[in-house]
Amino acid sequence: MAIIVQKYGGTSVGTLDRIRNVAARIKRTRDEGNQVIAVVSAMSGVTDGLLKMAREISENPTERELDVLVSTGEQQSIALVALALQEMGVDAVSVTGRQAGILTTGSHTRGRILNIDPSLMQAFLDQGKTLVVAGFQGITPDGMIHTLGRGGSDLTAIAVAAALKADVCQILTDVDGVYTCDPRIVKNARKLPEISYDEMLEMASSGSKVMQSRSVEFAKKFGVIFEVRSSLNDNPGTLVLEEHTSMENVVIRGVSIERSQARVTITGIPDAPGMSGRILGALGDAEINLDMIVSNIAHDGFARHSFTMHSSDLAKAQAALKPVITELSSNARIETDVGIAKLSAVGIGMRSHSGVAATMFKALGEVGINIGMISTSEIKIAVTVDETRIEDAARAVHDAFQLDKQPI
Amino acid sequence: MAIIVQKYGGTSVGTLDRIRNVAARIKRTRDEGNQVIAVVSAMSGVTDGLLKMAREISENPTERELDVLVSTGEQQSIALVALALQEMGVDAVSVTGRQAGILTTGSHTRGRILNIDPSLMQAFLDQGKTLVVAGFQGITPDGMIHTLGRGGSDLTAIAVAAALKADVCQILTDVDGVYTCDPRIVKNARKLPEISYDEMLEMASSGSKVMQSRSVEFAKKFGVIFEVRSSLNDNPGTLVLEEHTSMENVVIRGVSIERSQARVTITGIPDAPGMSGRILGALGDAEINLDMIVSNIAHDGFARHSFTMHSSDLAKAQAALKPVITELSSNARIETDVGIAKLSAVGIGMRSHSGVAATMFKALGEVGINIGMISTSEIKIAVTVDETRIEDAARAVHDAFQLDKQPI
Repeated sequence: MAIIVQKYGGTSVGTLDRIRNVAARIKRTRDEGNQVIAVVSAMSGVTDGLLKMAREISENPTERELDVLVSTGEQQSIALVALALQEMGVDAVSVTGRQAGILTTGSHTRGRILNIDPSLMQAFLDQGKTLVVAGFQGITPDGMIHTLGRGGSDLTAIAVAAALKADVCQILTDVDGVYTCDPRIVKNARKLPEISYDEMLEMASSGSKVMQSRSVEFAKKFGVIFEVRSSLNDNPGTLVLEEHTSMENVVIRGVSIERSQARVTITGIPDAPGMSGRILGALGDAEINLDMIVSNIAHDGFARHSFTMHSSDLAKAQAALKPVITELSSNARIETDVGIAKLSAVGIGMRSHSGVAATMFKALGEVGINIGMISTSEIKIAVTVDETRIEDAARAVHDAFQLDKQPI
Repeated sequence: MAIIVQKYGGTSVGTLDRIRNVAARIKRTRDEGNQVIAVVSAMSGVTDGLLKMAREISENPTERELDVLVSTGEQQSIALVALALQEMGVDAVSVTGRQAGILTTGSHTRGRILNIDPSLMQAFLDQGKTLVVAGFQGITPDGMIHTLGRGGSDLTAIAVAAALKADVCQILTDVDGVYTCDPRIVKNARKLPEISYDEMLEMASSGSKVMQSRSVEFAKKFGVIFEVRSSLNDNPGTLVLEEHTSMENVVIRGVSIERSQARVTITGIPDAPGMSGRILGALGDAEINLDMIVSNIAHDGFARHSFTMHSSDLAKAQAALKPVITELSSNARIETDVGIAKLSAVGIGMRSHSGVAATMFKALGEVGINIGMISTSEIKIAVTVDETRIEDAARAVHDAFQLDKQPI
């Protein structure tokens, strides 16, 4: 009997009818001869309703109490899914985060999974039960309730799969899998049968928001193979797994884009040790997530530092930089630029193939798209372009690497 | 610093505004120099809404999952009350049933408190925090979620007061205290400053639904003195405590009534050993709660057994009795009677005063009320009367014992 973990998000359990559909799918998987552990989120809307009440009570609610409040959402959905399964004759049992032995650390509302004690889940499985586990929640070593933040239910599913040594972990969602590019932009984008953890991580950090990076990192760390697939149909999805040699035949796995980027450029800073550290430190203290970072020396002998970030962080970044810049040099200047988007081409095959950047830049040049900043990793080339041209850019690069064609 | 436990019911926390009022009252108690542990129920309506969903999913939902589902109601209210307190500058913390160390036994949805491990609550108190504890819930020794059934939050408050050796336990409710009789019926009914556990138990089982019997029994067992008082004003309420000698000066503490009673009389049963056992056994198997039970021998030499019960149980009782009666004797007959009410006069002083029954029967006779069945305990005399006359009966007995007057 295979052990299958299935994760269902808030939309999938958003109404009582959808809960019945989820239960029917779990039952079907069970009837095919598998042991099933379903990890479910709160019914969509429930969490927001609870947060709204908290904000009416308190302008600045403490995160400890938000966790106590919000974690009731998943506790309700596991009971309802278990009841729906029981109504269909399945011997199901709900399991809270605490009962699942999910031990967490870190801050309230942003807990990290430290460890899982699966003994109660294992005991239920040994009794032949189907488990319905609350996603998104756990407890601290001293027994306080923690939620895991955005994408927390994916993380729960992967951690539970690791702890129970599950054969399969399915992340059931509203997309069919991971595509070579967003199919709403690139019509001939193709669903990938498989992708490596590292590629998935680069895609996630480049705007393909199928999953949060930390869930993929957790899966990579514990070697959990998972499949991203649709909760609405039975089509196979995309397997995410450790890379294997045949994967290197593909130079570029996919292209992802990220809009609403802003660039900050600082000029006129003396090229001396510690300068970059001061600047990056100020931005870090202001909790601004930088994306691309490019530095070099301009013809005037001064250093030139450029960063990209989400445009919503721009004002905060300027405020944080101003005092530091003034202190460092009277020549220093801050230039800003918005209306920028980022395009990333990702693939582990890049390591063993040359000429990738050239193909990409040529393709963009042929459709008259100007490249701004460039940044590369071992398995990614990212460029900034004018936001108005990002879709053309995506199509041009997708075509140049023939991503619509099944590789041999 | 005194330790005060305050219990607030679902109506008291039924809206966000009421939650703020509850928080203000807790803060006031705190500001008066006390350590406060508030035990709160779910916001009124929340539990019913959850049960409604469960019944839409399943015709016959399992009680285990109902407990998982319904216990989220209190978890939400403790977080919201704690947030409201924090917004007022009080260092408050929410505590779930599990965190409060409330260990339970018995069936799901009807758990009984086995034990309390107050170590986390004590640690929070030692840190100077104000506690907001979830009523109505606990966990079994193997970590499953239990709810405590009707009146469960009162039980939680009393158990927490016992475990923390609280100085005061206040049951804040929508009545001002315990009255000599229902003030809606007897206009000059008087609020009692104090009542003994045993009297309170007799009142509770005689229709005065201020509290469930088992909460009073628990308080009696652990010697927890509690006060029933209004959550809407600061008037002193009624202290419920172990009897003391001066309490015996009062012959009758109060009068309570219970409507919608039915009587079943069985005639024509041979007066032989084991007959009553067979009859009562059949009713017990059918889970019918009998109230008064009167048996004697009629002039024809046959036994005559009469019972009262709530009239909603009558049909079930008849169905359960029919096969037994037929088997016991061909002469046996079942007579039924509805439209009956019960009046009880309760007081520990009865033990040391004679003539109580005579006074009561005379008072009823003077207003032309016929007495049906009579049953007595050491501290109670109960009679059945025609339901249409129950209010007159209550006023007559209340007057006869001069319950409107403060005893000397």
